[in-house]
Amino acid sequence: MNTFGSKFRLTTFGESHGVAIGGILDGVPAGLRIDAEFLQSELDKRKPGGKYATSRKEADAVQILSGVFDGLSTGTPIGFAIFNANQHSKDYDNIKNLFRPGHADFTYFAKFGIRDHRGGGRSSARETAVRVAGGAIAAMLLGEFGVSVRSGVFGIGDLEARGLDFDFADESEIFALDKELDTAGKNLILQTKENGDSIGASVLTVINNAPAGLGEVLYDKLDARLAEAMMGINGVKGVEIGAGFKASKMLGSQNNDLMRDGKFSSNNCGGILGGISNGEQIVIKTYFKPTPSIFKDQETLNLSGENTICALRGRHDPCIGVRGSVVATAMARLVIADMLLLNASSKLENLKKIYS
Amino acid sequence: MNTFGSKFRLTTFGESHGVAIGGILDGVPAGLRIDAEFLQSELDKRKPGGKYATSRKEADAVQILSGVFDGLSTGTPIGFAIFNANQHSKDYDNIKNLFRPGHADFTYFAKFGIRDHRGGGRSSARETAVRVAGGAIAAMLLGEFGVSVRSGVFGIGDLEARGLDFDFADESEIFALDKELDTAGKNLILQTKENGDSIGASVLTVINNAPAGLGEVLYDKLDARLAEAMMGINGVKGVEIGAGFKASKMLGSQNNDLMRDGKFSSNNCGGILGGISNGEQIVIKTYFKPTPSIFKDQETLNLSGENTICALRGRHDPCIGVRGSVVATAMARLVIADMLLLNASSKLENLKKIYS
Amino acid sequence: MNTFGSKFRLTTFGESHGVAIGGILDGVPAGLRIDAEFLQSELDKRKPGGKYATSRKEADAVQILSGVFDGLSTGTPIGFAIFNANQHSKDYDNIKNLFRPGHADFTYFAKFGIRDHRGGGRSSARETAVRVAGGAIAAMLLGEFGVSVRSGVFGIGDLEARGLDFDFADESEIFALDKELDTAGKNLILQTKENGDSIGASVLTVINNAPAGLGEVLYDKLDARLAEAMMGINGVKGVEIGAGFKASKMLGSQNNDLMRDGKFSSNNCGGILGGISNGEQIVIKTYFKPTPSIFKDQETLNLSGENTICALRGRHDPCIGVRGSVVATAMARLVIADMLLLNASSKLENLKKIYS
Amino acid sequence: MNTFGSKFRLTTFGESHGVAIGGILDGVPAGLRIDAEFLQSELDKRKPGGKYATSRKEADAVQILSGVFDGLSTGTPIGFAIFNANQHSKDYDNIKNLFRPGHADFTYFAKFGIRDHRGGGRSSARETAVRVAGGAIAAMLLGEFGVSVRSGVFGIGDLEARGLDFDFADESEIFALDKELDTAGKNLILQTKENGDSIGASVLTVINNAPAGLGEVLYDKLDARLAEAMMGINGVKGVEIGAGFKASKMLGSQNNDLMRDGKFSSNNCGGILGGISNGEQIVIKTYFKPTPSIFKDQETLNLSGENTICALRGRHDPCIGVRGSVVATAMARLVIADMLLLNASSKLENLKKIYS
Repeated sequence: MNTFGSKFRLTTFGESHGVAIGGILDGVPAGLRIDAEFLQSELDKRKPGGKYATSRKEADAVQILSGVFDGLSTGTPIGFAIFNANQHSKDYDNIKNLFRPGHADFTYFAKFGIRDHRGGGRSSARETAVRVAGGAIAAMLLGEFGVSVRSGVFGIGDLEARGLDFDFADESEIFALDKELDTAGKNLILQTKENGDSIGASVLTVINNAPAGLGEVLYDKLDARLAEAMMGINGVKGVEIGAGFKASKMLGSQNNDLMRDGKFSSNNCGGILGGISNGEQIVIKTYFKPTPSIFKDQETLNLSGENTICALRGRHDPCIGVRGSVVATAMARLVIADMLLLNASSKLENLKKIYS
Repeated sequence: MNTFGSKFRLTTFGESHGVAIGGILDGVPAGLRIDAEFLQSELDKRKPGGKYATSRKEADAVQILSGVFDGLSTGTPIGFAIFNANQHSKDYDNIKNLFRPGHADFTYFAKFGIRDHRGGGRSSARETAVRVAGGAIAAMLLGEFGVSVRSGVFGIGDLEARGLDFDFADESEIFALDKELDTAGKNLILQTKENGDSIGASVLTVINNAPAGLGEVLYDKLDARLAEAMMGINGVKGVEIGAGFKASKMLGSQNNDLMRDGKFSSNNCGGILGGISNGEQIVIKTYFKPTPSIFKDQETLNLSGENTICALRGRHDPCIGVRGSVVATAMARLVIADMLLLNASSKLENLKKIYS
Repeated sequence: MNTFGSKFRLTTFGESHGVAIGGILDGVPAGLRIDAEFLQSELDKRKPGGKYATSRKEADAVQILSGVFDGLSTGTPIGFAIFNANQHSKDYDNIKNLFRPGHADFTYFAKFGIRDHRGGGRSSARETAVRVAGGAIAAMLLGEFGVSVRSGVFGIGDLEARGLDFDFADESEIFALDKELDTAGKNLILQTKENGDSIGASVLTVINNAPAGLGEVLYDKLDARLAEAMMGINGVKGVEIGAGFKASKMLGSQNNDLMRDGKFSSNNCGGILGGISNGEQIVIKTYFKPTPSIFKDQETLNLSGENTICALRGRHDPCIGVRGSVVATAMARLVIADMLLLNASSKLENLKKIYS
Repeated sequence: MNTFGSKFRLTTFGESHGVAIGGILDGVPAGLRIDAEFLQSELDKRKPGGKYATSRKEADAVQILSGVFDGLSTGTPIGFAIFNANQHSKDYDNIKNLFRPGHADFTYFAKFGIRDHRGGGRSSARETAVRVAGGAIAAMLLGEFGVSVRSGVFGIGDLEARGLDFDFADESEIFALDKELDTAGKNLILQTKENGDSIGASVLTVINNAPAGLGEVLYDKLDARLAEAMMGINGVKGVEIGAGFKASKMLGSQNNDLMRDGKFSSNNCGGILGGISNGEQIVIKTYFKPTPSIFKDQETLNLSGENTICALRGRHDPCIGVRGSVVATAMARLVIADMLLLNASSKLENLKKIYS
């Protein structure tokens, strides 16, 4: 339901225009240094603002409520909250009784019979701030083992990056993976925004230095868990691992990653074989649809099922894939941290190292 | 770990060349007619044999061991087993000490420190027979609500179906979705097989008549669970929902599915909005890599890490995506059945219908 | 870990002397009226203060952060927090480096290698306020079906109630189940407190009007889940259902509950047969040890393993069983609410009522 | 549902008079020697037969179907089955349409609306053979760390053992913990049996050498999990840890376990403080009601709700607590194995031992 992960486990709450959003991160091993500054800086990457995102103003200041003592994790759950500051719920009064196209309005109403019209309520991407917070703490754990996760935008509409420079992406306002995409992408986003429209994007995520052996047999495979994590991000419609869709067009003799001199000669598998990491770079591509909120009149139904027109106002991202890049990193971190913990008891010899 | 689903829950065991494979299906509501003939017929679709699959001979006769009385489910777990008949473990003696490229040999060894070299052991696609059995029982449950799941192959290598005829696919030996793909695909598979090679494929799965409201907020979204289910099938490297990765190139004004006269005007979202079904057809595409087992000499390492050559013998599918089509149907059925059960308590009014 | 329940699921965080305690209640069906006043009044029953409990002053004001809109549950998780007001962490400075006898100090240190000495940190009974909050919302759900849970103290030290008057218990400052226990119990508690000592107690919990059929086959039996819930309350060392320990001394012909004229003639089983409710009153007895915090010098070890003397100061309950009575009610409510939801899909005919 | 444990996880299936019972044990670390002889010998302890148990003849021969290769666990799930041999389903024809007093007949019918009258179906204690098998494999794992679990009968009706000799209990046909109970208990059981009646019993279980630190904060406490495990055994109505319900009559100064010279001076807590093991012997008492099957006419209802008389025939244990002793051992083993695995990631330093 609202819990992600099994041993490293994030449970979240909160709506876009409610009092607060937040979460409980359970299973953090004791003795981990919790770097509050890093935590906030990760939230700052995702937070709204700037020309290429929504103009909603949220400091996204995260407050740790438990689970940390003298700067170290205690092994007990880390509770945290981000209080909402800049709700403009009135922006939504005019859509109170209709279903916004492309949004979850219709399906939430079908499921719950209740309409929380204020900015999408729980279905809003605002909740992803909580994932980013959880992912930041996961990153602290992963850092202890030299594992790092990086993401960047490699496609916006029909534009595609040629280079894959994560350092560049970190500096880019739109997390573009090369200079050309950065320039052309910004133009495209602004132009789309001016047209009252929105645009799709795609994100590349890599996990460096993950040890071989992560992923549980047989229904917690690493690739399955990553696919679940990525597909669960707001607006995602496709996920690939390694060669991905292209693998379906290949011959076995092209696709198989041979081994030689102690290592793999290629990485079509994207670092995962049989659902378990092989020690190579883990490579994931995630495809985002355009933001459903656009400023054009759209046909839709009202709550009584009658035809009507949806005309949005308010503040919206013209390209959710951009901030989605930060969330993709967070989700990959959460998955890998969980898998590290789960894998700890895969072999009797591992347990003997602990209980001896 | 080896359990799939939360309320409609399949736990499986078994290795390719072990004594038996089987499972326990928990959460089947009491009073469901269990059609043993249909169950076996579903297994027959997946079972090995024929020109386009491995020549291993397995009747895949499934034996129900519990949970059914007088032809009806009792509400208690349905245990079942398929005893392996045609193990040729000796076929694998020559690869006992090396890692087959593209297989899970290396990663299982990294994870467990144990080598069960007999046909891939647990990582073999043979285990998917158990999923098909579980999926068949799920189909009986879904049938009570008019929900049906269908799959077919829409791509083999560079070939792609133009039509999408599931009735045709049901009759095709390679589950091809149109006549042209059936003919050309068979040729391509045979030719690839003669070359000692293998080929990738892609599968389309649709779910008809699923009620709106399925999918749990917020980490058991229907699309996330489907992505997990599909990516967890042996050899899958990519999953799309609805417009899929093409959505990442679209404008919001193109991608949004408008509503009019009580229904959706398009289905780019593939039947899922905000992770919850909207009552439209649910559309999933699953991309399979080529079978890793090929009959060409391949560079690899032995268990001591030294360079060696892998030369396989034995019986293998030239295109795992073909039988993967049957497994995709099974996984979608398991997910939808689980979601139906989970959703039963979404509204207070649903509970009142039961406890009154 | 820090999550209780499967479909009606409470996840909690917080330490005795941290910033806040709180929780996320997931799985609340949409459309339930959330009575904030009742919620607070339930917390007030458990809150510290008075002659017979610790003198720590906490308003225990609970703040709902999400999941409720226009007074109704929305089906999304209900996040809530109780900010700590009256921490006297300095009271604990002198025990910073030693293990308090009877407390979890030693075991938490063994498990986590970290010492949060401030009032027991996570192991403090302060966390039970969160359970009471969750239980109060469960009570709102149960109320829709006429189910109620009541608890009272039936034993304090060697004193035992003769009558079982829950209305009286509700008014008693020590939740005593009859007048005699109320009078004698208060005296005993005060006298024990004056001696710098503490005393054990026992609590009776009954669940009225629970429908027959609750409890999952076979490892989520209702009695097993209740036993887990009660044994997990701070200080509990024993749990009985129905005739309990005494059943082990009985003959089958004495213990079996016969049926006649449409109902059970006795209730030795305590409303549960084979782990499933039978429609009779569910009866649970829970036994609390004396509060481990006493004001006598006690031998113990310091963190280096050397002998030392523990001399406590601070504010402590002389009899944790008293407030434990409120927590027992909360836990029973949480279990029954979970079981109601889980049972909703036990029969095909139940599902048909929903999906039709 | 039908799964016990989280990381060391047993899922079971099967009915008393079905084709087979069995289970899937998931999470067994790779590299554990699986001693098939020991496994069978543990099942033999529980198996029916002899003067003091039911005369149903079952070899209870357990067949391992997966997860073991060359005598070692592979890390993949261990599937196993016990085929039923000696079903006398006809013995139950006369109770087909009525509810046996003290049994789960009524509640299963209320829950599922289906009647599997053959020997109680899933609710039969026959399923506990599967738990014993799972517990035996758990014992192999625990043995690697020097942990052992032992149980014996300490009470039968009003008789109580004075000594607690587990070696003696192992040799006793009724697992009595001393010679006097053995002699008097056998007489009492036989006499009760001749009277067509049955008798309750109580079982003491101890866990030796469990490391300190087992038990998860805060809803997977070790004592809560043990209480759940024991209360879930057929016929159990009460569970105590350590001083148990006597603790509710004690003063804190009597009950607290002091520490001196590096160890605890007493063990009233039964080896568990704050839900976490403290390294002392873990002590659990489990109370069994008398077998509900007795050979006396008993008032009951038929499936139409009319008064009728239940007159049983067939083969039944006169004292289920006796064989319950073997099951108590199994459940404690399963819990401790699970807790060992869960605890492996409690500290960052533990993970560093593995991933370095």
